[in-house]
Amino acid sequence: MAGSSFGTIFKIMTWGESHGKGIGVVIDGCPAGIPLDETDIQTYLDRRRPGQNRYTTARAESDAVEILSGVFEGKTTGTPISLLVRNQDQRSRDYGNISELYRPGHADYPYDMKYGFRDYRGGGRSSGRETIGRVAAGAVAMKLLQELGITVQAYVSAIGPIHIDRSRIDLSSIEKSPVRMPDPGASEQAVSYLEECMRSQNSCGGVVECIAEHVPVGLGEPVFEKLDANLAKAIMSIGAVKAVEIGDGTLVSAYKGSENNDCYQPDESGIPYKTTNHSGGVLGGISDGSPILLRASFKPTPSIAQAQSMLGRDGKCHEEIIRGRHDPIIVARAVVVVEAMTALTLADHLLLAATSRVDQLKKIYNE
Amino acid sequence: MAGSSFGTIFKIMTWGESHGKGIGVVIDGCPAGIPLDETDIQTYLDRRRPGQNRYTTARAESDAVEILSGVFEGKTTGTPISLLVRNQDQRSRDYGNISELYRPGHADYPYDMKYGFRDYRGGGRSSGRETIGRVAAGAVAMKLLQELGITVQAYVSAIGPIHIDRSRIDLSSIEKSPVRMPDPGASEQAVSYLEECMRSQNSCGGVVECIAEHVPVGLGEPVFEKLDANLAKAIMSIGAVKAVEIGDGTLVSAYKGSENNDCYQPDESGIPYKTTNHSGGVLGGISDGSPILLRASFKPTPSIAQAQSMLGRDGKCHEEIIRGRHDPIIVARAVVVVEAMTALTLADHLLLAATSRVDQLKKIYNE
Amino acid sequence: MAGSSFGTIFKIMTWGESHGKGIGVVIDGCPAGIPLDETDIQTYLDRRRPGQNRYTTARAESDAVEILSGVFEGKTTGTPISLLVRNQDQRSRDYGNISELYRPGHADYPYDMKYGFRDYRGGGRSSGRETIGRVAAGAVAMKLLQELGITVQAYVSAIGPIHIDRSRIDLSSIEKSPVRMPDPGASEQAVSYLEECMRSQNSCGGVVECIAEHVPVGLGEPVFEKLDANLAKAIMSIGAVKAVEIGDGTLVSAYKGSENNDCYQPDESGIPYKTTNHSGGVLGGISDGSPILLRASFKPTPSIAQAQSMLGRDGKCHEEIIRGRHDPIIVARAVVVVEAMTALTLADHLLLAATSRVDQLKKIYNE
Amino acid sequence: MAGSSFGTIFKIMTWGESHGKGIGVVIDGCPAGIPLDETDIQTYLDRRRPGQNRYTTARAESDAVEILSGVFEGKTTGTPISLLVRNQDQRSRDYGNISELYRPGHADYPYDMKYGFRDYRGGGRSSGRETIGRVAAGAVAMKLLQELGITVQAYVSAIGPIHIDRSRIDLSSIEKSPVRMPDPGASEQAVSYLEECMRSQNSCGGVVECIAEHVPVGLGEPVFEKLDANLAKAIMSIGAVKAVEIGDGTLVSAYKGSENNDCYQPDESGIPYKTTNHSGGVLGGISDGSPILLRASFKPTPSIAQAQSMLGRDGKCHEEIIRGRHDPIIVARAVVVVEAMTALTLADHLLLAATSRVDQLKKIYNE
Repeated sequence: MAGSSFGTIFKIMTWGESHGKGIGVVIDGCPAGIPLDETDIQTYLDRRRPGQNRYTTARAESDAVEILSGVFEGKTTGTPISLLVRNQDQRSRDYGNISELYRPGHADYPYDMKYGFRDYRGGGRSSGRETIGRVAAGAVAMKLLQELGITVQAYVSAIGPIHIDRSRIDLSSIEKSPVRMPDPGASEQAVSYLEECMRSQNSCGGVVECIAEHVPVGLGEPVFEKLDANLAKAIMSIGAVKAVEIGDGTLVSAYKGSENNDCYQPDESGIPYKTTNHSGGVLGGISDGSPILLRASFKPTPSIAQAQSMLGRDGKCHEEIIRGRHDPIIVARAVVVVEAMTALTLADHLLLAATSRVDQLKKIYNE
Repeated sequence: MAGSSFGTIFKIMTWGESHGKGIGVVIDGCPAGIPLDETDIQTYLDRRRPGQNRYTTARAESDAVEILSGVFEGKTTGTPISLLVRNQDQRSRDYGNISELYRPGHADYPYDMKYGFRDYRGGGRSSGRETIGRVAAGAVAMKLLQELGITVQAYVSAIGPIHIDRSRIDLSSIEKSPVRMPDPGASEQAVSYLEECMRSQNSCGGVVECIAEHVPVGLGEPVFEKLDANLAKAIMSIGAVKAVEIGDGTLVSAYKGSENNDCYQPDESGIPYKTTNHSGGVLGGISDGSPILLRASFKPTPSIAQAQSMLGRDGKCHEEIIRGRHDPIIVARAVVVVEAMTALTLADHLLLAATSRVDQLKKIYNE
Repeated sequence: MAGSSFGTIFKIMTWGESHGKGIGVVIDGCPAGIPLDETDIQTYLDRRRPGQNRYTTARAESDAVEILSGVFEGKTTGTPISLLVRNQDQRSRDYGNISELYRPGHADYPYDMKYGFRDYRGGGRSSGRETIGRVAAGAVAMKLLQELGITVQAYVSAIGPIHIDRSRIDLSSIEKSPVRMPDPGASEQAVSYLEECMRSQNSCGGVVECIAEHVPVGLGEPVFEKLDANLAKAIMSIGAVKAVEIGDGTLVSAYKGSENNDCYQPDESGIPYKTTNHSGGVLGGISDGSPILLRASFKPTPSIAQAQSMLGRDGKCHEEIIRGRHDPIIVARAVVVVEAMTALTLADHLLLAATSRVDQLKKIYNE
Repeated sequence: MAGSSFGTIFKIMTWGESHGKGIGVVIDGCPAGIPLDETDIQTYLDRRRPGQNRYTTARAESDAVEILSGVFEGKTTGTPISLLVRNQDQRSRDYGNISELYRPGHADYPYDMKYGFRDYRGGGRSSGRETIGRVAAGAVAMKLLQELGITVQAYVSAIGPIHIDRSRIDLSSIEKSPVRMPDPGASEQAVSYLEECMRSQNSCGGVVECIAEHVPVGLGEPVFEKLDANLAKAIMSIGAVKAVEIGDGTLVSAYKGSENNDCYQPDESGIPYKTTNHSGGVLGGISDGSPILLRASFKPTPSIAQAQSMLGRDGKCHEEIIRGRHDPIIVARAVVVVEAMTALTLADHLLLAATSRVDQLKKIYNE
């Protein structure tokens, strides 16, 4: 099944394995006339790249993107934009002990059952390198959002038991933190915690939060194509995410109605705004004019450096260690992936909602 | 945009407003040969129906379903199954004070901005009655799952601050509890809590959990069409859901890798099974052979019987009470909606995964 | 598979069998704000209805449509429009000799092989009554086209060997002709020819042409979603159509380039127009500003009143007569079906093309 | 809009312009386990390539394909297959006179109106080089068909007024003919006719026919997703095609029912077969067990070497000659494109029809 495609009008198809010739994406449905060059995309890929510091894998990939089509004289043409990142570090390693074993916490066993084979050299399409396609496409979606004044920003809000203090959030500090936490104190604590995890040959989970601002009121459809439903799919489709929350998320189950209801008021120029934002910017599946807030819980990196019991294709359990270097956390590099999936979802909904009313069509065709 | 459609091959389209002529759904893509009659569907609709007890609205709708097409001699024909539930209680009430106001916690304002109008008689497609189409279609999906031995069961695990005790879960007691909690002690406490909410003209949130068992290994695709990504979309598309969790959900962010990894072992007949199920039955987006576990957090019913400040179309705020009777919680009636969305997602993935390998195709065509 | 759905944004799902409870369609994705009532749809259904004269079947169905949802205060709401036509003439006939035989020219055998059963009472979804859903939905699409000034008109251009004389076409005479030919002389000849066919217990084929005018330049996408590609699918999906032509159609294979190329010139106000229209209004898959012209060749009604050899489910051939009354031609009643499929295709492309450029989006969102 | 995607489960996305960095396609949804290497694809691309003889353009492109993903140890993995053909001959020519003019018979004007710009260097996505993506993907579809014993073969049946003699068709001679006609006599005449066209600085149209054999009974859905409807879309989406016919095509409009109806008989082993094949292998939209026959009429190459009147962006008409070398006919090189689109459509329908009945699903999941 066509499981590597995303979106209805702003539609992408990603491809590539970590140990093949490259990774890429084709974007079919990006409107014409948006300024775009390789730097716009590279900036995002660089934030995803491994080897940024010692809490991310040392794999030396420059991950340079090449635009193969869809741009003419510096602008998108309205036709497919093909983006290619060649793999550089694909040397044939000795995967010996892994190739016949089902690693705990990985998709090895279900993958093997599903397809009748498994690319043991890095997980095939279950590799984290798969997200290169998402980030590259997300960078293009972000350019479209920019044209309409919309911004999307994510950061790490928790690593293991360490949470940011919401009263001290400083979004400008995100990229200064080696773990992308916008609270310097929490960031420092998280770094110590990670050092401890690595010493004990372990990994740990974390939380990524994302804010989209200046989203027009009216994106999202009232039933299945709710904006938050599509955001939930987009974010849950990122490997290792086990929970998605919108606005106050799981907390709402303990609220009373009077605590949870957001009220509208007119601002000085008479435009309605919500005095609170428990809803996270979405009411009844439709953007409500407040910032869109979402949160993703990531599980710990499943590959850890201690011995684990692994079932083999031989039907027996083996006590083995997974060799190679692996990130002790996923969240720091996942920040840009969450931004990308949010941007892709918003871009598609922008195109979909643009024709909800016949008067919009008249504006386009009868001018 | 076509926002009332769901699924790729097992595809449904729902329609209808609470104050129109009826509510319904068409299922396009259900395989031929499945036994189906109206009772199969009515059983599920009856569990969703209002007026079951004093914690659900008193609106007197029998919600009787009629199969209009797609069944011949007691079996599905492989062609569209059209299901119709006529509205009975659509008397023209006085919506006077509401029709010009944006109710807090409702989609009224974004709906109005999106479409340029709003059906104030019950919320249009944002009405809870919209879920009739989901439940009716879900009942058909459930028949398909049954043919393959798969079961789906949901229940309420929390209401406000009252949680079930996991050591005392008794699934057979769900329908005996007026709030569908499978722990009689917690159910009793929740009932007291609800009485208190109603006395104080308030409502409260809650949590629904769902288990799907005997799901074949291999459903779901490794990138965007992950089984859990589509479950997240399906569940988040239910009105009032603000968080979706798979397996251990938000808890995983505080785990270490060694705590979170599930290991496979062979059972007596040599078939692999997981000794723990932190993953909730999905690894890398693909069903892993363990039960699929998901959890949805519902916000409190936004319509409460106390005065609230509401912005009007006149641009001014009004202190008003929303008249009519409303459920103090959503979760009890939502249990069957969660089951329906889970069943619809699994049915679609069963059809999609059936052609993942060329040897499956040969089995179909070259016998 | 979901084979009864059509369209990407202006999306429909049809349902119903000739001998079930009814026939209908749901339209998901029609923009809000279009005036619509049942008369708008009934007008089109009445042109499709059997029993209009002796060249159409005598089955007495009033085919009255009921709008079940999606219209509020006389306008479309932007949410699904559900349309229902109850079957009236579904008496249980004696299908004895047919139920076990594969009728020549019908889908009986492949249907049986595909689904493992066959609804012998009128062909299931292969019945001509299936087109009620198309025509009802097409009438709604036509309302959208009207809002933008687009017209769609079809007629019969040939019946058996009788062709209209292009120099004498009078579109206002279509509905006066019992066979919907816009040339009174040809119409009279065709009627005689049909009488002769009926006397000899035979049927005959014919051709329907369709013109869409005032279509904006720019509908259709340059590769697979060409406007003419989608028109070809739409028209070929009508039962009995065996060829679809755009513009000069099959004739172009014998043309030289210099004969086939259409040139643009500026009109008095400087707007480009084509001096010829061999292309039929579509160049490179995109509407070019000229009228869109298409042509469909229909096979003869396969049910004829003379004895034919029919293979039975018993594996033997039987010489049998198909009882019942059947139209001697399909084309007269198919005219409105061709219009409907053309309108549905244009409506979907109008919505799709409205977001081809970022400046269109700015017009919608940044006003 | 996402107009460069094709298929529902066996889904492709093509990309690339004639004067950009390359052309390619991603195939998302090809089943796992099919043997595939670059030679399988190159063979088809070589048949499409320009410069094969003097009736095709002299542009020197080797069009070598590179498989970038989706193949592991010589077999498809079930995940996206990315194929890349680098452009070699993209030297910056002087397009001076063309860049500001709308060439007759080309999409220049509607393209410009649609996107607000036009890639004048070869037509952007309207270039004939766009078909490289189709042919490469079609070669992969063909490998899937082969696994199930299905064959697809196309050839030229007419060039201008020269038609093959059906009594002398010799399919083995196709590739021996410089114009891919399977009748050596007609081929010779066509070559003379083409020489004459070139001498008079003109081009001409032609017809391509295609036969698919050993297609299982039951592919295609009874309403909109008819097999022939999707074939019609697939073929009409090839640039320059103006008519698509199935089986006897336009001829059926003049037939009587008794002439057109195909009867089934049992063969020696009791398997039903049709004694005639007017239907072209499709009845009611479903494959009927006979060979599938289709026919496409191509217009003459619009670029001709004689002076033509062309509207400019300056609003004035100019008498100009289009420089460069252009094929005098399209059909010879289009043969492999027609095969590709047919194969892609059949592959998708094979996957879609495999889950039409619940007993098929049981065969897959309950073994």
